[in-house]
Amino acid sequence: MPHINVDENLPGIRSLMAFSPDTATPMGELANLLLRSNDGLAMADRELIATHVSYLNDCFYCQHSHGAIAVCYLDGNTELVDQVKMDYPHAAISDKLKALLSIAGSVQRGGKFVTEAQVNAAKALGATDKDIHDTVLIAAAFCMFNRYVDGLASNTPTDLSTYPLRAKQIAQNGYGNHIFSNMQPVQ
Amino acid sequence: MPHINVDENLPGIRSLMAFSPDTATPMGELANLLLRSNDGLAMADRELIATHVSYLNDCFYCQHSHGAIAVCYLDGNTELVDQVKMDYPHAAISDKLKALLSIAGSVQRGGKFVTEAQVNAAKALGATDKDIHDTVLIAAAFCMFNRYVDGLASNTPTDLSTYPLRAKQIAQNGYGNHIFSNMQPVQ
Repeated sequence: MPHINVDENLPGIRSLMAFSPDTATPMGELANLLLRSNDGLAMADRELIATHVSYLNDCFYCQHSHGAIAVCYLDGNTELVDQVKMDYPHAAISDKLKALLSIAGSVQRGGKFVTEAQVNAAKALGATDKDIHDTVLIAAAFCMFNRYVDGLASNTPTDLSTYPLRAKQIAQNGYGNHIFSNMQPVQ
Repeated sequence: MPHINVDENLPGIRSLMAFSPDTATPMGELANLLLRSNDGLAMADRELIATHVSYLNDCFYCQHSHGAIAVCYLDGNTELVDQVKMDYPHAAISDKLKALLSIAGSVQRGGKFVTEAQVNAAKALGATDKDIHDTVLIAAAFCMFNRYVDGLASNTPTDLSTYPLRAKQIAQNGYGNHIFSNMQPVQ
């Protein structure tokens, strides 16, 4: 049961964004900027980083929401997304993305866990400064989103069949319109 | 030395926001909404929560930046800010704020560490749903800001005498104008 009085018909972060539409606006914009871009990292890479960090933070809602979006970008390859989430070193992804996921994992523990060696390894595999910046900020942002969702104990659908439909909408149209659709402040 | 090529004349998060002005915009807006409001929690309370979480995350730049802003709101009472940061249970603050700082500390560890007992204790001391929401989101947001600053190893002034001037500007005028003043993308 959520710690505050939110609309229980809305799942996860959507119920919190309806509770606080003012703060929802920049949070939605940040999600769109970080996840809906193919400038450097592809949208699939960005969602995989978000999904892996949400898994490390044990956030059921976010790992399944963003995992389902990654699946959309990866032609339905659920197995690949699950492997990246839980065991990326053995997944069929580029060495560059593995190096970036390693950095993201360090960010999840705390900013100071990122080492110069990790950054140099990523750069040697072709990561640009923007790729490294975006990886660190995606990982950091999901340390916020995950804590927001679970820190207020927002409702989390446990039926995994509910995630793909919304994921498809986001994969097609981005976060902006859909995060805010059907949103009414509840107090 | 920063992990990416940022303007080394800018400290901490300001160098990262100059590197990535697109993402800086919603991050600055979120900071303003969460920290520059007296709706429920006072601005001083909000900065104390941000400072305490930044201390728990061992983020030198953020704990001293936001600590200095809290000092501005608290008539120069540096001792009180230091005590809230490091030992709030014994500080001369309200029991309600202590209960909210306890929730913020749990959010810093992870969203699921927040207990119903903590939330009920805060409510019994007068915390509204909005107070609890804002506390959780401030704590979560600083888990992002702290990781962004340290995850990219941005430059941190170690001379504590440099923090109060900028803190005074923010205390007077808010984050928006000042986060973005003198910002030029560096690549």
